[in-house]
Amino acid sequence: MQAEIISVGTELLLGQILDTNAAFLSQILSRLGVDLFHRTTVGDNEERIARAVRAAVDTSDVVITIGGLGPTQDDLTKETVAKALDIGLVLDEEAAEWIRRFFELRKLPMVESNLKQAMKPVSGRAIPNSVGTAPGAIFEKDGKAVICLPGPPSEFNAMVTESVEPYLREKLGPTAAVIKSRVLRTAGIGESAMEQKVKDLLRSDNPTVAPLAKTGEAHLRITAKASDEETADAMIDEVETKLRERLGSHIYGVDDETLEQVVVKALIARGLTVGLAESCTGGLIADRITDVPGCSAAFPAAVTSYSNTSKVELLGVPEDLLEEYGAVSGPVAEAMAKGACRAAGSDIGIGVTGIAGPGGATSGKPVGLVYIGFSRKQGAHPATERTYSQEFTFSGDRRNIKRRAAQAALMMLRGELL
Amino acid sequence: MQAEIISVGTELLLGQILDTNAAFLSQILSRLGVDLFHRTTVGDNEERIARAVRAAVDTSDVVITIGGLGPTQDDLTKETVAKALDIGLVLDEEAAEWIRRFFELRKLPMVESNLKQAMKPVSGRAIPNSVGTAPGAIFEKDGKAVICLPGPPSEFNAMVTESVEPYLREKLGPTAAVIKSRVLRTAGIGESAMEQKVKDLLRSDNPTVAPLAKTGEAHLRITAKASDEETADAMIDEVETKLRERLGSHIYGVDDETLEQVVVKALIARGLTVGLAESCTGGLIADRITDVPGCSAAFPAAVTSYSNTSKVELLGVPEDLLEEYGAVSGPVAEAMAKGACRAAGSDIGIGVTGIAGPGGATSGKPVGLVYIGFSRKQGAHPATERTYSQEFTFSGDRRNIKRRAAQAALMMLRGELL
Repeated sequence: MQAEIISVGTELLLGQILDTNAAFLSQILSRLGVDLFHRTTVGDNEERIARAVRAAVDTSDVVITIGGLGPTQDDLTKETVAKALDIGLVLDEEAAEWIRRFFELRKLPMVESNLKQAMKPVSGRAIPNSVGTAPGAIFEKDGKAVICLPGPPSEFNAMVTESVEPYLREKLGPTAAVIKSRVLRTAGIGESAMEQKVKDLLRSDNPTVAPLAKTGEAHLRITAKASDEETADAMIDEVETKLRERLGSHIYGVDDETLEQVVVKALIARGLTVGLAESCTGGLIADRITDVPGCSAAFPAAVTSYSNTSKVELLGVPEDLLEEYGAVSGPVAEAMAKGACRAAGSDIGIGVTGIAGPGGATSGKPVGLVYIGFSRKQGAHPATERTYSQEFTFSGDRRNIKRRAAQAALMMLRGELL
Repeated sequence: MQAEIISVGTELLLGQILDTNAAFLSQILSRLGVDLFHRTTVGDNEERIARAVRAAVDTSDVVITIGGLGPTQDDLTKETVAKALDIGLVLDEEAAEWIRRFFELRKLPMVESNLKQAMKPVSGRAIPNSVGTAPGAIFEKDGKAVICLPGPPSEFNAMVTESVEPYLREKLGPTAAVIKSRVLRTAGIGESAMEQKVKDLLRSDNPTVAPLAKTGEAHLRITAKASDEETADAMIDEVETKLRERLGSHIYGVDDETLEQVVVKALIARGLTVGLAESCTGGLIADRITDVPGCSAAFPAAVTSYSNTSKVELLGVPEDLLEEYGAVSGPVAEAMAKGACRAAGSDIGIGVTGIAGPGGATSGKPVGLVYIGFSRKQGAHPATERTYSQEFTFSGDRRNIKRRAAQAALMMLRGELL
């Protein structure tokens, strides 16, 4: 089955709102195994809505419009679809009664134009709205369907889940194919270097493997089409195994799993705690770690030491190190990592110092230069430390450099915990 | 001038990402007075990209594609546009050199496929990418233009602002009608409470005033259409004055100005510094402050004190306060604020303690309960302190509560600096 989505609304074309509805519906269609090759956005304009609907009906089995079902003159979708398909509209008494009650209950005045929302196609039916006043509509003609849904996300989501998904499942029948996806999340490897390693797999048809670049990480999406979920899962498993052989520990997580979740989980599993000393990342690593519920078991404290004085006083970085090597240097990153351990009373310390820009570069120390220090207590009495640092050069603006440095620090920590 | 946007990417059609790029570009086009009647989304499929490009070129003066400029086999946009328009591609030596240097600097291996990104149209030109490796491209034919832009939002936004907007302005010439917008950013007031205060102004036609809710803040966008920029500005000024009369100090900034920028600017102007003690916000406030270039003049250090021990040891919070009132309490927030001053050696201290959830609630202390302490040194010898705290209850998930608490802390700091 092939579908097309038409989002209607001038506010979309002005960029005033994001089209979260179309994204939500796309996910549902993908899960049902319905092919979606095309999405269109048009304004509140009768001619352009009609043209988009006619073009979509020509090539698709199901067309779903979003928006333009309200009571105002701007809301044209249902009337336009009716004209474009040459299907009449009649008053749905049940919907009209529901709209009257809705206004009565809220003690709001109802105007006659509200009743235009209660019109339904003579060939097809109305879709009840459990959240607001505007019912949806399904127009049926020659085995094809045009489904009109309202724009407000709460009404839209309810209607998709309660009515559209069951309607499509029924239309698809029991033998329909399912499309399933799994995302493998990698970091510490460039998008093109990664592609080099998995090139042959990117050419396969089913499952498909598609790369997706993010700041500081790259994802691989495996998508399989099969007759049932189990078969699709098995097909994905097979490709995942191959990808893991090639990419090894660069793969840190699956689907929605974030790097900070993986790190906190690994720390808790090993009974270890981490303390942070952040300079150029400015609190971003601590912010990410504390996004993970339950992180307090692994994360006692962090210091954002922006000034040199605070590096000395809060972290015990020796002043002569700062003088000899400068604040942005390997030795200072290591001293910060040790200081993080002491300040937080943790098993592991991470220290990050660098130049996030746009200012602050000196000769030999460009914007994007970052040192990450790692320190871990070893042995018992007296405890010794294993401490080292790594140099990185990150590109991008200030925010990007902060994000890439935070990502690298979390990857370094994860690497030590594997 | 009429434009069309074509977003390219299977991940969009699977609903895996929201098309923020198209929304951002739509705003820019609207501001320039360029008509956008239609937006299309297609997958990474040569035939469908080509069809969409040809259809768009037929009806529009400018077509802008988003996505598909990466180095992988999936990235087909530039090659497909070249074929659809019958315009050849040649290697842009400058772009090739930039890509080589990019990999050298980051010490990453470059593969030959990276160089396909350096191809540019023989009729038209490459668009430099100040943030990543993929240059954009402008294809020119018969007075029309097809502009190809990369998908990663930071690269996309930079390229739109630095190259596409100036290119379109030049193409539009000086006599076009202009649409100008100004955003007033408010915080500390709910969206519906704000709407209540400005209700009548939301009904006007030109300028229009549109509310837009964000986490922890609400924006009002004023948009005016006029024959020239000066007239549009004057129309906007008039409405802004009215809005400021109604909303007063709830308006903290204009357009892209962030709350952290406003706060850092105010601190520097007054020669003051701030130190932070974050518990439930976990480093988010420090992260936001350090997003502002030059913040080091106002921000020496912060402590993320997640454990009770760290509150005592790093911030000097008296243990009996923790026992008597609990970590999430006004007295502890105040002691944290004082401790932040001492630890950072700053004039002002902010302490934030609360329950971000989903766990951690106790009877009388629900998820979302947050105390923000403020402390400021006053007088000289001996310096005294003015210290107080405020109680808040925020709604939402863990991330939302962190964001709302950070926002409230920055608003409190801004209020003290006004």
